[in-house]
Amino acid sequence: MSDFALTEFQARVEKARTAMQARQLDALLFCTEAEVRYFSGFRTLFWQSPTRPWFLIVPRKGEPIAVIPRIGADLMGKTWIGDIRTWSSPHPTDDGVSLLVEALKGYSRVGLPMGDEASLRMPPRDFMALRASIGVEFVDCTPLVKSVRMIKSEAEIAILRKICAIASAAFARGPDIFHAGQPLDEAFRSFKIALLREGADDVPYLVGAAGQGGYGDVISPPSSEPLRENDVLMLDTGATLSGYFCDFDRNFAIGGAEDVAKAAYEKLWNATEAGLAAARAGIRCRDIFHAMHDVVGGGSSDIGRYGHGLGIQLTEWPSICAWDETILKSGMAITLEPSLTMANGKMMVHEENILITEDAPVLLSERAAPELPVI
Amino acid sequence: MSDFALTEFQARVEKARTAMQARQLDALLFCTEAEVRYFSGFRTLFWQSPTRPWFLIVPRKGEPIAVIPRIGADLMGKTWIGDIRTWSSPHPTDDGVSLLVEALKGYSRVGLPMGDEASLRMPPRDFMALRASIGVEFVDCTPLVKSVRMIKSEAEIAILRKICAIASAAFARGPDIFHAGQPLDEAFRSFKIALLREGADDVPYLVGAAGQGGYGDVISPPSSEPLRENDVLMLDTGATLSGYFCDFDRNFAIGGAEDVAKAAYEKLWNATEAGLAAARAGIRCRDIFHAMHDVVGGGSSDIGRYGHGLGIQLTEWPSICAWDETILKSGMAITLEPSLTMANGKMMVHEENILITEDAPVLLSERAAPELPVI
Repeated sequence: MSDFALTEFQARVEKARTAMQARQLDALLFCTEAEVRYFSGFRTLFWQSPTRPWFLIVPRKGEPIAVIPRIGADLMGKTWIGDIRTWSSPHPTDDGVSLLVEALKGYSRVGLPMGDEASLRMPPRDFMALRASIGVEFVDCTPLVKSVRMIKSEAEIAILRKICAIASAAFARGPDIFHAGQPLDEAFRSFKIALLREGADDVPYLVGAAGQGGYGDVISPPSSEPLRENDVLMLDTGATLSGYFCDFDRNFAIGGAEDVAKAAYEKLWNATEAGLAAARAGIRCRDIFHAMHDVVGGGSSDIGRYGHGLGIQLTEWPSICAWDETILKSGMAITLEPSLTMANGKMMVHEENILITEDAPVLLSERAAPELPVI
Repeated sequence: MSDFALTEFQARVEKARTAMQARQLDALLFCTEAEVRYFSGFRTLFWQSPTRPWFLIVPRKGEPIAVIPRIGADLMGKTWIGDIRTWSSPHPTDDGVSLLVEALKGYSRVGLPMGDEASLRMPPRDFMALRASIGVEFVDCTPLVKSVRMIKSEAEIAILRKICAIASAAFARGPDIFHAGQPLDEAFRSFKIALLREGADDVPYLVGAAGQGGYGDVISPPSSEPLRENDVLMLDTGATLSGYFCDFDRNFAIGGAEDVAKAAYEKLWNATEAGLAAARAGIRCRDIFHAMHDVVGGGSSDIGRYGHGLGIQLTEWPSICAWDETILKSGMAITLEPSLTMANGKMMVHEENILITEDAPVLLSERAAPELPVI
């Protein structure tokens, strides 16, 4: 009942330990879904309940310790974690804090993600109580976690390949699924069903839009407006398999398309071509951004970046943007996601998922057609 | 493009302002999905990307202020919020912090959820920088938010009724969907499709289990083990409509059931009967807990409670447990979720969704059969 072999988790922890050594950290403390799952293998949708906090401690020496609500003991017991400490949660006065104090005893410098993209998934009141009751210095370990998680193992890549293939197969059925007169929310619902039928475990993320000559924004839930002839329909999905996300979109023209939409699509497709040509180990994220931006030219959108890392969260580090100096390494999975705003004020986005290698990147998503598909 | 009329949001803010007055707070600061959506109407699945922080300020005097990444400007522009301040995010050095400092200028006491069930969805580093650069005292406003959000409006109740009816209709199709020999993950996938077909927008949460005479835990993703004759199959779903959750489960016996499973089911059904008889305005949560616990008797499970609030999160305040003193009020939506561990070490859970009134509660889920349904 684990998504990975024991060796996968040992390798993850070993990488973290090496980095802890370099940063003189005694342990790492995690309270967020992605990090707890990454190091323990504990996977459940139950994190959507905000009621209970969950903790994992990864010491530099010694075995990891899970400090979790008793409701999770059985599932955590199926992972490789041996030291599982539980309490009856929710608790009116001590929701795991005293167990944490006990587990962190003896450490002086403990890493906690506090930087880019981090959040604190426990009551801030309890974190302050924790900090006040132990002599531990909490140090931001965001760069450490980033450096470990960004490089995907073969086992992770195998899952990413599968979920991207599932979404590609669902998108390939687009011409059968989408049609003029179909309410947008029905199009979304049908596409979610297609993703599940192709083998996705879940579809936690599906956004999109439709409009004449382009669309207005790219993070909205669907309206019930029917698709019209000449609409451009865009669907962007983060479907999951074994807890790993694909994240790419496809554009379809319903019946036909305005020239401005065709031209925008072509420009974005060419931008991803430039991204594909540039993306390989040793290149900086900002260089890929510029390679795509040179093709997009003016009219850059407000999305803030042209892609990002891919993995156990819908978006991960790094960012494909003008200021991200991250040097790509073999084994990184990223999205190429150029976008633009057209003269008509509408926007368009195109996205592919790729794996970085020493040579040309490997496409995880099936490459989109070079011309806006009319269905 | 809003889930509610303007008056709904005005009423929510007005309630919050009255409570702010009583607590001498100048404003509330929110960075979490549920609170930002509750007061603004801003609904998007994009929160699943951890990259960008989002903020909403609800002042005691003056209009709410959204401080958000530019990618969300268009969607926020469709809500009732007029003062929308954006920046290009992700940003390497200032991800909204200086805009927040500017927006909070002049306030001395600002409420921020820091207590039960709260989390800080922004880099803790940035929160510390914010706190250091303004003379604002941040005060825990969890009780305030709790008191406002716990009472559902007629408009919210209408959505909860619909999503519970959708899930009830999907569960009613159980006998056609589930069968011996079916891998559990296929049963899950088919049930998600059934929920979507019945009209759910999304199925963010589906957990469950199957086993002879009961099951092991209740938060696991499904294995690919086939269902066997005499298995008890339990599915617990949080499906959504317009961003509101149902949250209830159903148990099915595949082909037949062991007596121990039938007896456990009957006991839990009787426990929910006791809960239904007890639940009404003026009663404390702990009283409902005890009414159900008296029926369950020994063998209480490790779940920590027998139900919880229902709304825009999978679980909300209050908790139906021995220590929750919350007095129920008309308009609260809660779940009754007794569980038990059997002599064979297996467990069973049963859950209904109800609306609290001055009289008998209104069932939102279609009442489960009094005897374990054999399919």
